[in-house]
Amino acid sequence: MDLEDRIALARGEGEVDLLLENCRLVNVLSGRVHRASVAVAGGIVVGLDGGYSARETIDLKGKYLAPGLIDVHVHLESSMTTVGQFARAVVPRGTTAVFTDCHEIANVMGVSGIEYMVESADGAPMDVLVMLPPCVPATNLETSGADLEAADLEPLVREPWAIGIGEMMNFPGTIARDPGVMAKIRLFPDGPMEGHAPGLTGEDLCAYIAAGPNSEHECTTAAEAEERLRKGMYIYLREGTAARNLLDLLPVVNDANRYRCCLCTDDRSPEDLLERGHIDSMLKMVTDAGASPMSAIQMATINSASRMGLKSRGAVAVGFRADMIVLDDLEEFRVSTVFKDGRVVARDGELTVPTGDEPEIGSTFNVAGFSPGRLRIPADGGTARVIGVTPGQIVTRSLTCRPPVEGGDAMADPGSDVLKIAVVERHKGTGNIGVAFVKGFGLRSGALASSVAHDSHNVVVVGCSDEDMAVAVEKVVAMGGGQAVAAGGEARAALALPIGGLMSTLPVAQVAGQVRELNSAAAGLGCSLDDPFMAMSFLALPVIPSPKITDIRLVDVEEIKLIALFY
Amino acid sequence: MDLEDRIALARGEGEVDLLLENCRLVNVLSGRVHRASVAVAGGIVVGLDGGYSARETIDLKGKYLAPGLIDVHVHLESSMTTVGQFARAVVPRGTTAVFTDCHEIANVMGVSGIEYMVESADGAPMDVLVMLPPCVPATNLETSGADLEAADLEPLVREPWAIGIGEMMNFPGTIARDPGVMAKIRLFPDGPMEGHAPGLTGEDLCAYIAAGPNSEHECTTAAEAEERLRKGMYIYLREGTAARNLLDLLPVVNDANRYRCCLCTDDRSPEDLLERGHIDSMLKMVTDAGASPMSAIQMATINSASRMGLKSRGAVAVGFRADMIVLDDLEEFRVSTVFKDGRVVARDGELTVPTGDEPEIGSTFNVAGFSPGRLRIPADGGTARVIGVTPGQIVTRSLTCRPPVEGGDAMADPGSDVLKIAVVERHKGTGNIGVAFVKGFGLRSGALASSVAHDSHNVVVVGCSDEDMAVAVEKVVAMGGGQAVAAGGEARAALALPIGGLMSTLPVAQVAGQVRELNSAAAGLGCSLDDPFMAMSFLALPVIPSPKITDIRLVDVEEIKLIALFY
Repeated sequence: MDLEDRIALARGEGEVDLLLENCRLVNVLSGRVHRASVAVAGGIVVGLDGGYSARETIDLKGKYLAPGLIDVHVHLESSMTTVGQFARAVVPRGTTAVFTDCHEIANVMGVSGIEYMVESADGAPMDVLVMLPPCVPATNLETSGADLEAADLEPLVREPWAIGIGEMMNFPGTIARDPGVMAKIRLFPDGPMEGHAPGLTGEDLCAYIAAGPNSEHECTTAAEAEERLRKGMYIYLREGTAARNLLDLLPVVNDANRYRCCLCTDDRSPEDLLERGHIDSMLKMVTDAGASPMSAIQMATINSASRMGLKSRGAVAVGFRADMIVLDDLEEFRVSTVFKDGRVVARDGELTVPTGDEPEIGSTFNVAGFSPGRLRIPADGGTARVIGVTPGQIVTRSLTCRPPVEGGDAMADPGSDVLKIAVVERHKGTGNIGVAFVKGFGLRSGALASSVAHDSHNVVVVGCSDEDMAVAVEKVVAMGGGQAVAAGGEARAALALPIGGLMSTLPVAQVAGQVRELNSAAAGLGCSLDDPFMAMSFLALPVIPSPKITDIRLVDVEEIKLIALFY
Repeated sequence: MDLEDRIALARGEGEVDLLLENCRLVNVLSGRVHRASVAVAGGIVVGLDGGYSARETIDLKGKYLAPGLIDVHVHLESSMTTVGQFARAVVPRGTTAVFTDCHEIANVMGVSGIEYMVESADGAPMDVLVMLPPCVPATNLETSGADLEAADLEPLVREPWAIGIGEMMNFPGTIARDPGVMAKIRLFPDGPMEGHAPGLTGEDLCAYIAAGPNSEHECTTAAEAEERLRKGMYIYLREGTAARNLLDLLPVVNDANRYRCCLCTDDRSPEDLLERGHIDSMLKMVTDAGASPMSAIQMATINSASRMGLKSRGAVAVGFRADMIVLDDLEEFRVSTVFKDGRVVARDGELTVPTGDEPEIGSTFNVAGFSPGRLRIPADGGTARVIGVTPGQIVTRSLTCRPPVEGGDAMADPGSDVLKIAVVERHKGTGNIGVAFVKGFGLRSGALASSVAHDSHNVVVVGCSDEDMAVAVEKVVAMGGGQAVAAGGEARAALALPIGGLMSTLPVAQVAGQVRELNSAAAGLGCSLDDPFMAMSFLALPVIPSPKITDIRLVDVEEIKLIALFY
């Protein structure tokens, strides 16, 4: 709609597309809830409280109307579904825009992975705004599917969907002025850049902020959040599946700083999206903790839009996009209707519009056959390092064992809960495989394999026998990516994740169901972890202490170096 | 300072330029006042609370440190001094940045007037950020010095100092989609655009906002401000010399909307700047009215920077410009020291640095001789229209008189307080002169003339006799612009305003002194208005009801047309 038409319609000349009457408007700009009618034309709010004639009128009968919710920081890949399926799950919950850091798919597919995410969002009734991932791969201690330098990202900077730089996890490289990091920071001189620097403090935190990252979603304590707010960062209050910090951080928020605070999920599992929901689930948590509904909704709407420098989102007001939600009340925050660009896109928990066609995407697997023999660990006679897994934590402990030896090979010892773990390179056909020992899964037989393995997303496999481990890996490879439980020489449960080895094309509910089956199959084999695949997904991430394993070898994360399996 | 150096210094590697120790930091980002030390390098805050070594250390001994104050909307020309002299007056009061709408000088000099303002700001310890004036001239019922179309402004859009579009006073043209207005609006599709639409409401206000203007500084009532906030505008709480709205609007501000509210002065006279000060004077008014000091300071700093989309101003935090003020307390808000870009620029009310050289600027006058004969009003025998002036108001009333006749001419009648008023075109040598009658000055003899006459700034003159009126006009012309009081055939008091006929090169205090002398001379001639030159400056502004007079003729502002002097 051109400017002149917009002005004319706002003035009441001609018919607007839609008139919402009898709303209680949660006005995040005036900070008040007030009776209003809202006129929409061309997907934009053109009038408030005027005498408009409209092609369609909806009487909201006094229900609350609020801006569409925004997730200011999310990795959509964690939903294990396509953008379309993600939208199908969360738009009915009120989410109308997400800022996604395509870090996972970019590690697999590089720039084409980022472009795939954008294309797949094309028909979805939700805006997918992209933060360009600056840390692909996370380290050079592993083999990823892609390596994104500043020159690779540079052409994307001009895309309308590229809003800024995603989370700069390489904080050591940032404060050490690594030239590659500096080049990436210079891509968006004035744009938002997401921080990720848990634990960083003092002068090093100042140096990190001085470099550019001006938000933090990794705070776990109020003191951390307070230091970051003071020093200049926006704070994203995160309530993900694994990392849940909202309630710990809320005490920092006050009336004078709340405009610098936004809500995000970062990573939510399919089951979590299904059961708890999305940003909507956080509103009630915020108000239950004592904040006002206005404050909660502002943190989920206008604050995020403002932080990102987007001027026409996050509010129901003249000139803003007509992304709006109807709420039954401001206590439970149940979303009954969702408008995207002025059009009803969801009612009563169901999407009412299609999500668009899924772009074609080929297999990202390049693994030339696999056999149990590749998992052999020649015995050394000495003491072996063991990755110690603690339930609910992604930090590991460094343990040791003296593995039993059979036919010259060091073996898993399920009786002592010492299993074998391997990371199988799957992007470039290198044949790389890193093999080691792990403790904490409790598996008494069989094996678990997954191509969701941060950040390079090679295939990680844990098991009691080389044969079942090979079966599980082969199943994952055969599906073009996914997760599998094998035992007795055959696959017992499987979830196909053909999109980059990370995402299914099925609805969130079906994916959640299959994840439950996988976990149940694992539990049937003795697994003592509630979510062994989640635990596995972090064991190949060589930026979280330590030790971790990549397709190359064991890694000492603190020392940032490869280490030998045997002492 | 390049990025790498900034990071290194922030990390404590090397010496920073300045370390402020022992501050009570008014942290507008965290919303708290806390003890801190602040490290500055290259004009940027690089560290908070670290162990920095510095070339210079200042112990603030527990005094408050706050961000430099920002005037979000001001016409610098109203100070009647150069930018340098303005800075000399207000920087010691804590102002470190202004957003100025160069509407006045642009009406005289066009683009070169805007460029002059920027050049004259060059050496001043205050950032002068420009909003491009979109309404030059205000109407086609007068002769201005320049006519700025979108094509004239377009080259300026790329200048780093051009932040957005200034106040769109032509709200009728905006909502009527005047092509010239639309072209100007399209210059900055995403930039800030200042509104000016007093009294506009309902659908027309929606249409105006839909067109682009997204702030309002003309609210006079809380209800007006509330409607504008709701509909999507930022609200500028104004406390100028003539227009004082702050206290009327403060009741609208609450904890949920204060981030959309900013402080501005719009227009302050030299005397007002001298006696009340600048934005600093508003802080105490805000807190006296019950708001918190944090809220007051946020409205004077970070809110304005955010509204304008400037990301590194308005706070004392890492990566922000080191524009900072030291306050003795948060009650009187007395500013004792001012830092601009990390350098002390004022202490104890005095600027401690030069303000830079004033650019050369020629006379803007093009008036080819003047004589009393040009002020003649041939008698018509009928009833004449009279502009009725009410003290303290810029809206006029339409009165009538039957003027005495001498030698075939209609004469002033000081006994009935009916004087003559004329507007002498002075830009283009057209010889245009509009002559009429005015009531309300109370002058019993003599005449007053001024080249400050909104918005075209021709020479306006009011007087009892054609001879003294001519003397006053000739004095103004001879000074290349200014204000004069004449009586008995000679000038009695004068203020030279050689910069565009609007501004003096003298310090604010001297200008204020000369203004007092002018007012005193006028009072000595019987003038009953406290500030007759202020009143005169609005009598030639044909957008304020009505009647007004231009260099062409009397104007009926409501009907937007020229009208005859006699019925």
